[in-house]
Amino acid sequence: AARRLQASVGSGGGAAREEMRQAVVNTLERKLFYIPSFKIYRGVAGLYDYGPPGCAVKSNVLAFWRQHFVLEENMLEVDCPCVTPEVVLKASGHVEKFTDLMVKDEKTGTCYRADHLLKDFCKDKLEKDLTLSPEMAGEFKHVLAVLDDLSPEELGAKIKDYGIVSPDTKNPLSAPYPFNLMFQTSIGPTGLSVGYMRPETAQGIFVNFKDLYYYNGQKLPFAAAQIGQAFRNEISPRQGLLRVREFTLAEIEHFVDPEDKSHPKFADVADLEFLMFPRELQLSGESAKLRKLSEAVSKGTVNNETLGYFIGRVYLFLTRLGIDKSRLRFRQHLPNEMAHYAADCWDAEIECSYGWIECVGIADRSAYDLKAHSEKSGVPLVAHEKFSKPREVEKLVIVPSKKDLGLAFKGNQKMVVEALEAMSEKEAMDMKATLESKGETNFQVCTLGKDVVITKKMVSISMEKKMEHQRVFTPSVIEPSFGIGRIIYCLFEHSFYTRPSKSEEEQLNVFRFPPIVAPIKCTVFPLVKNQEFDNAAKVLDKELTAAGISHIIDTTGISIGRRYARTDEIGVPFAVTVDSATEVTIRERDSKQQVRVGIDEVASVVKQLTEGQSTWTDVEFKYPSHIGPQGDQE
Amino acid sequence: AARRLQASVGSGGGAAREEMRQAVVNTLERKLFYIPSFKIYRGVAGLYDYGPPGCAVKSNVLAFWRQHFVLEENMLEVDCPCVTPEVVLKASGHVEKFTDLMVKDEKTGTCYRADHLLKDFCKDKLEKDLTLSPEMAGEFKHVLAVLDDLSPEELGAKIKDYGIVSPDTKNPLSAPYPFNLMFQTSIGPTGLSVGYMRPETAQGIFVNFKDLYYYNGQKLPFAAAQIGQAFRNEISPRQGLLRVREFTLAEIEHFVDPEDKSHPKFADVADLEFLMFPRELQLSGESAKLRKLSEAVSKGTVNNETLGYFIGRVYLFLTRLGIDKSRLRFRQHLPNEMAHYAADCWDAEIECSYGWIECVGIADRSAYDLKAHSEKSGVPLVAHEKFSKPREVEKLVIVPSKKDLGLAFKGNQKMVVEALEAMSEKEAMDMKATLESKGETNFQVCTLGKDVVITKKMVSISMEKKMEHQRVFTPSVIEPSFGIGRIIYCLFEHSFYTRPSKSEEEQLNVFRFPPIVAPIKCTVFPLVKNQEFDNAAKVLDKELTAAGISHIIDTTGISIGRRYARTDEIGVPFAVTVDSATEVTIRERDSKQQVRVGIDEVASVVKQLTEGQSTWTDVEFKYPSHIGPQGDQE
Repeated sequence: AARRLQASVGSGGGAAREEMRQAVVNTLERKLFYIPSFKIYRGVAGLYDYGPPGCAVKSNVLAFWRQHFVLEENMLEVDCPCVTPEVVLKASGHVEKFTDLMVKDEKTGTCYRADHLLKDFCKDKLEKDLTLSPEMAGEFKHVLAVLDDLSPEELGAKIKDYGIVSPDTKNPLSAPYPFNLMFQTSIGPTGLSVGYMRPETAQGIFVNFKDLYYYNGQKLPFAAAQIGQAFRNEISPRQGLLRVREFTLAEIEHFVDPEDKSHPKFADVADLEFLMFPRELQLSGESAKLRKLSEAVSKGTVNNETLGYFIGRVYLFLTRLGIDKSRLRFRQHLPNEMAHYAADCWDAEIECSYGWIECVGIADRSAYDLKAHSEKSGVPLVAHEKFSKPREVEKLVIVPSKKDLGLAFKGNQKMVVEALEAMSEKEAMDMKATLESKGETNFQVCTLGKDVVITKKMVSISMEKKMEHQRVFTPSVIEPSFGIGRIIYCLFEHSFYTRPSKSEEEQLNVFRFPPIVAPIKCTVFPLVKNQEFDNAAKVLDKELTAAGISHIIDTTGISIGRRYARTDEIGVPFAVTVDSATEVTIRERDSKQQVRVGIDEVASVVKQLTEGQSTWTDVEFKYPSHIGPQGDQE
Repeated sequence: AARRLQASVGSGGGAAREEMRQAVVNTLERKLFYIPSFKIYRGVAGLYDYGPPGCAVKSNVLAFWRQHFVLEENMLEVDCPCVTPEVVLKASGHVEKFTDLMVKDEKTGTCYRADHLLKDFCKDKLEKDLTLSPEMAGEFKHVLAVLDDLSPEELGAKIKDYGIVSPDTKNPLSAPYPFNLMFQTSIGPTGLSVGYMRPETAQGIFVNFKDLYYYNGQKLPFAAAQIGQAFRNEISPRQGLLRVREFTLAEIEHFVDPEDKSHPKFADVADLEFLMFPRELQLSGESAKLRKLSEAVSKGTVNNETLGYFIGRVYLFLTRLGIDKSRLRFRQHLPNEMAHYAADCWDAEIECSYGWIECVGIADRSAYDLKAHSEKSGVPLVAHEKFSKPREVEKLVIVPSKKDLGLAFKGNQKMVVEALEAMSEKEAMDMKATLESKGETNFQVCTLGKDVVITKKMVSISMEKKMEHQRVFTPSVIEPSFGIGRIIYCLFEHSFYTRPSKSEEEQLNVFRFPPIVAPIKCTVFPLVKNQEFDNAAKVLDKELTAAGISHIIDTTGISIGRRYARTDEIGVPFAVTVDSATEVTIRERDSKQQVRVGIDEVASVVKQLTEGQSTWTDVEFKYPSHIGPQGDQE
């Protein structure tokens, strides 16, 4: 863990990164890829709008996600509300555990994340304090490594020991206390029904498991998927678009028999090779290494084939969007990062100017979520495997004597009965033994919050042989969860480059978005203002619209070079210059190569290019290239 | 207004409608088009999930909306957060006015909408009380007609006079009081920053007007658009999917010069003819009539060409989705329904089993919203018209003397200066007159919350002639706002029909969705289970996936008739039966006609059908028809 942290400390710095980020962010803001929300009212930290090109990139990413996952895997897509009643998020654990530790400036009341303050303090000491003793340096490094595991008390003690004060006022700070990150609200007019804005979309799928299982013909495995808004009321948002208070998630819940996690299409991804960062590499201080997916699964580095299949599919999704594969790694969670119930977790991390950022989490969550909702709701969320012939099994049979229990516990009888029936095989057999030897035993009834005395006649416990016709079990769930905004921000950084202008005085900005992602697929420029070219542009406008291709007609009459620069800056892959009534040139953004194409073919050529049915190389092969005054105007 | 109400009273009833609704709703629920949200926890009123086919219909409707509006009209689509700070919704008026009147059961605290109780009471009396005197009948009809205009006091008086009590307990009711329908929350950890879940998406566009105007090259008109969730904390949701607490809106804000509301593409829709229900028809008790759009605009029934253009585009959108044009009307708002600032409003109303339902509002909101945000934020949200040559105008010039004001008001000087500079021409000229006659005057400074005394030397006021190079003005906005969930529900009802099964014992349910809307575009059935047909089905699966066509492979082996019935019930338009390794039959859902097509052509034939490039008639013309045992299995 120490090593891992060090890597992320190191990667955050660097003036070059800072400068590169500034160049990207300036272009993104100037071109309205995004806008701080409610800017005219001085904004709200952690809330951003997507402006026109950003919004188009987002819909393209989501459309491709639907094609790549929902359509190709026949997933059941659902769409659930954001407003969620408390009972659901109590069952999922969010009401109790979805918290960050917060400290308050004792005089102004300003709030800070306790771990952020401690992290900043330690990093600052390590980077800037030249008089630091090796012992203290070691201690600060250790603190950074174990930061996520500190209890509120330990965090508070460190803050006190190091004399950390409020960064803005230097006032003393309160002790750390948990702050729930869900936006709370009230459903209906009475004010009595607590609700929250969902912190993830997954719960909407889990509560529908039963219906979806029947919809799927009671067959496993199957996956459900959901795209939607999620909300986290961050204490003090930072890192721009990466840590926000409202964001779009795309989540998949793949339900599978826990006894068979093979995947029929694993062979399709088995040969992929990419950067993997399993636990042992992290713990031994090495970096991520190229690994073949089939090996990672067969050697057990990745827990099972289905988890491996989704890792492969996520790799294909991200790289096809335009994420640089040399800056993408799959990092396995360390044991202390994982929830106790999880079988294995891998994050797709993308490197950007902020360091390695978790963009997709791929977790085998075992049966935890379905079991939690079964218990809380009383509705069994289970699957059935019908046996071809009945099997003999030994089964625990617990028969509470309602009469004796009723006499002893009156109104509490029901809760005692339920607690008895809910005993595990081990608990029940222990009780049986005690009852047989002592005649009575203490028994904890959680729903009553106390122990009761159970006597021998109150319950009969036995193991009986039975013929079973089916196996009833709670499916495991494998969950790939995509932070769409983070993926898009990383894509912006990976796609951005500059090239010299013709005059060499300024750098021109370019986004090398693949056609599938580009917000606008092509621009149409009449070379000079005249009726003939304008008419041709109008015809193209109609044809491109009919073909469903987003485009801009630019009739401003400024120089072709400047028009190219404008469209490069929002990543338009193809520019069509109209210089005759019958033929045009199409220019590819990155190579700046041009071909001549008949006007009536333009829409279909661009459509095939943007839908991936042909490549620019195909087009260059088929159509005559064009070298002329419009060739390179910058 | 009385007539209008009567019509809606009448249309709500009817046993046939009730039965028809039940049949649709049963099919929708059984097939998981939608699911009451959090069903295993007994649900939450007014919240629904879209299950797999419903979710697919919804994405298809939104994709078509983007094609029909955003792409065809070159709109600037944006994507803003749902969480909105209070200041924005104070400016828009929602904090003060977005309320319904509520009454409480005085003993149980249960809440009801006051107008619903009064409405139900009057309708009940009119329908069931046979002893009702003509005078009382007249009064009840009048109450129904003016229901929306009653003040809280008037509503309370009626409830008291009529002895209306709590419908569930018969307890007395409280006086009506306003309940704000926004879900409230708190942004950030301090609890001091009030936020709301947005009640509409429009405000996110208005606050970005300035950036969007620059993005559009400072040219008018232009339109911005947004699709997203909106929230209304209804007091007591009813009418199933029609009145919900969270829903998807698709909104367009078309900004236009108030002095020129012509539309360059009006000719494209001018000849459309459809049911219009202008004010005069409503007031004279007639029903909606077929009108030509060009006439409605030229006669001034519709206020302006741009408003007319959008009415036409909305008509095309809805009918292409599959809304029955004989059950679609455009109803003009009566003067008492419109906000005072609105120039004209028309609702696209669709008739379903609940009556005529407002599904799209198309309003000319004049400059109200931009002015409200300009005032509150201090950022001018204006457009400029550059004159070809400068024009002479008389302009008010207010020059506060900062020295004298500073001496008199010290720290408050800035606010006094701002208030002076913000005076209207009339206020300023009145002040000038008073200062000249009396030497001083009282002046209210809102930001200080008090009056101050202004003396003659503190400010100079004059009208001066100036040469102006441009006109600065606040654009008008024309807003088509689409309730996507309502449109989809009406589409379900309009698309549903039943037909006899082969055995004539049961009715088969069918949704006649147009291919563009259908949740699944085709199903593939191997005629019988054998390796050859299964392999052919696998090839088709790959080709359909590559072409981006949602489909189901049904290898259950049940009878073809039952398989057709299953797919008809979710509205799949095309069924492909594989009965050879080289050729298949494609069957159209509604006509049940079949053609024979080569396996390698299937994907492209279905793609062209579903994208609207060809019709079934084209396909029947091109391919041999097939009549055989698979022809009509029901």
